[in-house]
Amino acid sequence: MTEQMTIGIDVGGTNMRAALLDERAAVRQRVSTETLAAEGFDAVMQRCAGLVTALLTNANATNADWPIGIGVPGPLSHKTGVVLNAPNLPGWKNAPVRDRLAALTERIVVVENDANAAAYGEFVAGAGEKSGDMVMLTLGTGIGGGVILNGELIRGHFDNAGEIGHMVVEPAGRECPCGQRGCLERYASAAAIADRVREALAGGEQSSLSNATELDSGAVQAAAAAGDALASRIWSDACRYLAIACVNLQHILNPRTVVLAGGLINAGEALLDGVAKEFRRLTWKMADDAPAIRLAQLAGDAGVIGAALLARKFAGGTPVQSAQDFPSL
Amino acid sequence: MTEQMTIGIDVGGTNMRAALLDERAAVRQRVSTETLAAEGFDAVMQRCAGLVTALLTNANATNADWPIGIGVPGPLSHKTGVVLNAPNLPGWKNAPVRDRLAALTERIVVVENDANAAAYGEFVAGAGEKSGDMVMLTLGTGIGGGVILNGELIRGHFDNAGEIGHMVVEPAGRECPCGQRGCLERYASAAAIADRVREALAGGEQSSLSNATELDSGAVQAAAAAGDALASRIWSDACRYLAIACVNLQHILNPRTVVLAGGLINAGEALLDGVAKEFRRLTWKMADDAPAIRLAQLAGDAGVIGAALLARKFAGGTPVQSAQDFPSL
Repeated sequence: MTEQMTIGIDVGGTNMRAALLDERAAVRQRVSTETLAAEGFDAVMQRCAGLVTALLTNANATNADWPIGIGVPGPLSHKTGVVLNAPNLPGWKNAPVRDRLAALTERIVVVENDANAAAYGEFVAGAGEKSGDMVMLTLGTGIGGGVILNGELIRGHFDNAGEIGHMVVEPAGRECPCGQRGCLERYASAAAIADRVREALAGGEQSSLSNATELDSGAVQAAAAAGDALASRIWSDACRYLAIACVNLQHILNPRTVVLAGGLINAGEALLDGVAKEFRRLTWKMADDAPAIRLAQLAGDAGVIGAALLARKFAGGTPVQSAQDFPSL
Repeated sequence: MTEQMTIGIDVGGTNMRAALLDERAAVRQRVSTETLAAEGFDAVMQRCAGLVTALLTNANATNADWPIGIGVPGPLSHKTGVVLNAPNLPGWKNAPVRDRLAALTERIVVVENDANAAAYGEFVAGAGEKSGDMVMLTLGTGIGGGVILNGELIRGHFDNAGEIGHMVVEPAGRECPCGQRGCLERYASAAAIADRVREALAGGEQSSLSNATELDSGAVQAAAAAGDALASRIWSDACRYLAIACVNLQHILNPRTVVLAGGLINAGEALLDGVAKEFRRLTWKMADDAPAIRLAQLAGDAGVIGAALLARKFAGGTPVQSAQDFPSL
């Protein structure tokens, strides 16, 4: 086996996955397991190493020195590979991800923010294909993001670029645990959509969702589609604030594409059309420079693909910056 | 005379300036004249060519083939050097700036948006010195901007990046001629600050400014400093919305520095302290990644310096990307 592969790992609060990526950015092997975050940092690192061993064993390549890219939540330092703080992962305060995983696996490890890694994966192999400038918003429990300009992932001076969920879209708006008011995340994340309906119901508002057994963003979208007034209002608000975020990204960065990703895109066209319609209404009429708004294509693979590609890029090997490098895609 | 110089031109609605820049990014010669924009595109191009001749004559170098960088208002195509539309310059619809000025001067011409050119000038030789990532907001009649990341000016897929004045900071806010609502420019430009006071006075509000002979942003700031309630409210609003813009730039791009430029910075510390104080109040407490907020240092020279540097960068010659390239600065 002579092909040079790369290993990508994506650590979430509940599950983690790993994949083996070939030179054409195609996934050759996938493994996954529960994160069991409560067991602490070192136990999670051990389980990451176990995923790597499983991948290499499956590929019959336990001796190959392929590098590892790992996407993890929370602000981190690229220079040291240390995660400063990951609210969903107990014990990850100044966690030396790079050095610990490198010691366990005896491989080069490149650490990246999980939303950045997913954005890079979509950029190269998914919805951002052939677009030199792309911004991705990952709409899940929170809202993460990633910015790619001229084919390069933008990390920022403090390694914290792409925190698009904390763009202020309503100055006197809802309080955010981050300390700000009116963050996008407080209106358009899956969790915020459900929270806002719950608050309205607790305030006595009438809705078909009063008796819902599972009140999540999917239930809100379904109720909105069925004509429920409260659900429609909250869902429309989410689309409108996402559209405002797109307007702001348009004027600051002028990207070719804005990609929507994460659990909320299970709503499909209901989300895409809602955001695109509001965007057309709200954006300027001065120039014809609106980005295309698209849904992500790689689903759960974006994170592992992006992490592996970034490992290839920063750990040596053939760097990959755009879909053009993969004629077969 | 063997030194390789570069020519920078900055075309404004009222005046235009040109300068000769040496290899250390120092200005050697300056000339300026009225734009007389009403005479139309070709007359302005002729006057630009006249400024070039004046510079070269002063420098005793009429035969030198130094390239020209020219900063102009309005959206433009870098590829073709054509200005699509410049609201303040009559007749500049699809105006072929690059080719016309190149024909008149027999030189290589590089065309850049004026706010981008000024941002690049400040980045290399002014307030952005030694900062790899910088965003500049130019606060004048409107609000322009420029984004520099990893030492590179970001132009965007549609050549329109850095239009920070049209970031939405108040979703249900004031109408903007651009077609949006709640643009930063409608609250924090010099013109908007004066407009908002005028509107309040017309609405019957009491203020020491009722009898002002010249009601501009400087008068509003002075009245605010003297305790006038209306002026204080409008001035504070401007600072607060600028702070929100800084928060959004922080999270999207994570720059090291945000530079405030343009006529409004004549207010000096009253502006800088007002914005910085609101910024500290409004930004998140999750990470220690706040940009430094600084005032521009090059005043009227930023545009010509930036245009000349971009000409050097894109027209051949020794490219210059950071202050470190100028040990003498």
